[in-house]
Amino acid sequence: MNNKQLFENIKKKASFLCIGLDTDVSKIPTFLLDSIDPMFAFNKEIIDATAPYTIAYKPNLAFYESEGLKGWQSLEKTVQYIHENYPEIFLIADAKRGDIGNTSSMYARAFFEKMKFDAVTVAPYMGEDSVKPFLTYQGKWVVLLALTSNKGAIDFQYFTDCNSGEKLFEKVLRISQNWGSEANMMYVVGATKADELAGIRKIVPDHFLLVPGVGAQGGSLQEVAKFGLNKQCGLIVNSSRAIIYDSNGQDFAVKAGASALEIRDEMSELLRFYDLIP
Amino acid sequence: MNNKQLFENIKKKASFLCIGLDTDVSKIPTFLLDSIDPMFAFNKEIIDATAPYTIAYKPNLAFYESEGLKGWQSLEKTVQYIHENYPEIFLIADAKRGDIGNTSSMYARAFFEKMKFDAVTVAPYMGEDSVKPFLTYQGKWVVLLALTSNKGAIDFQYFTDCNSGEKLFEKVLRISQNWGSEANMMYVVGATKADELAGIRKIVPDHFLLVPGVGAQGGSLQEVAKFGLNKQCGLIVNSSRAIIYDSNGQDFAVKAGASALEIRDEMSELLRFYDLIP
Repeated sequence: MNNKQLFENIKKKASFLCIGLDTDVSKIPTFLLDSIDPMFAFNKEIIDATAPYTIAYKPNLAFYESEGLKGWQSLEKTVQYIHENYPEIFLIADAKRGDIGNTSSMYARAFFEKMKFDAVTVAPYMGEDSVKPFLTYQGKWVVLLALTSNKGAIDFQYFTDCNSGEKLFEKVLRISQNWGSEANMMYVVGATKADELAGIRKIVPDHFLLVPGVGAQGGSLQEVAKFGLNKQCGLIVNSSRAIIYDSNGQDFAVKAGASALEIRDEMSELLRFYDLIP
Repeated sequence: MNNKQLFENIKKKASFLCIGLDTDVSKIPTFLLDSIDPMFAFNKEIIDATAPYTIAYKPNLAFYESEGLKGWQSLEKTVQYIHENYPEIFLIADAKRGDIGNTSSMYARAFFEKMKFDAVTVAPYMGEDSVKPFLTYQGKWVVLLALTSNKGAIDFQYFTDCNSGEKLFEKVLRISQNWGSEANMMYVVGATKADELAGIRKIVPDHFLLVPGVGAQGGSLQEVAKFGLNKQCGLIVNSSRAIIYDSNGQDFAVKAGASALEIRDEMSELLRFYDLIP
């Protein structure tokens, strides 16, 4: 999927929502624990209830790996289920990988060939040759960490070159643009830093930004839209816990669907307000 | 396992070798492809042939993930096999993980609870709260990326604060020391930068360093020992391809054993030269 197709889907669904499948067996409704594959059972219900309102899903690999072999199986089934039933969905492996070239090639194979993800999140610390192997796949994407939404973002991402005033996350944005294009790279930028989106947009005016931290982590969607939207929308805003754990009763999927619809409606309004949809 | 036990094992085996299990099905001897689990069959032979000469194994997660569910299974069997047969071995998951706190907790659970790794490699980009969840496990370790051995290390790791002259990797070493201790944190420092080890030792005099890049990537063991050894050895030097792919015939395990023995002998000499063993 390229950036134009992504924008088409956004317009069609009047949404730039991504739903994070941070599926934690200790948080899903207890009645699901009796099913053969509780993680998949939960995901399937959530997906069926929310797919009309979202353009992307983002399984968080840690949650599946923490369940070992069983979790890996649930992940594979989830990916396959989405592709078979919702082929328009953009599928992001939230994996934060990145290693020397020959190893990153193996990760690329894992996420793009073995499982049919469209994109994978990558940490930039090891530089160009740790990112490039992911970019050799036609139609596949790297989502590179730039400015994250957590407290620890302050530790290194703001490290500043006092000659130029450039911060590390700004250098990551500037340098990494040479490694790919707007059609195969996007950046993670935390919503908790919405006011910084304006500066980020100056460095990467045309790239998509994947924005976590709206909702549970406290970011505001209106602020994000104000500073982050570009001519092709250029935003994918993720929400995980606020949607998928809205209820843990029998009605969990219905509630998740309602929460997703609510965010979608807010997004539709914003897309209309900024003249991106009629 | 704590740093004292690690040093005891180093003295007992007169070795500070770690063997990287970068097991690539396209590189292992073809006759193994007929076995039920070729990756595990390969690992088992390599482990049995090299265990007397090594203090640690480091499976590289990417290679297992690239084989999907089957690969994850091979990894679990490999970890179990090592624990059951060589309980003195220090087992490192080379996974380069790191994410917001609740997600890092899940990764910690995956590697320390589900599989019984002793240590996991972690990327520092997301800062303190992405690393700390791994440090809550008694006797378990974080191996934090500082200065890596690949070409892309230059892109961000040398980013310099021109007031203090401090580079990003130096800041990572300095700041992260407050997150753990010498008994639960070590650092990745590429052997291709042996001359920089002296400076690194000034920042982290007492921590263990995990040094990749000796052999296939061109680093020299003598240089690494000269600048990197401390009173408790403080070095674990990794070799992957140069040992495990020394031959791809019927004699692959014998050859791997011989290669490991050769490096062990060089290490024994160095440990003796620097008065760390009698």
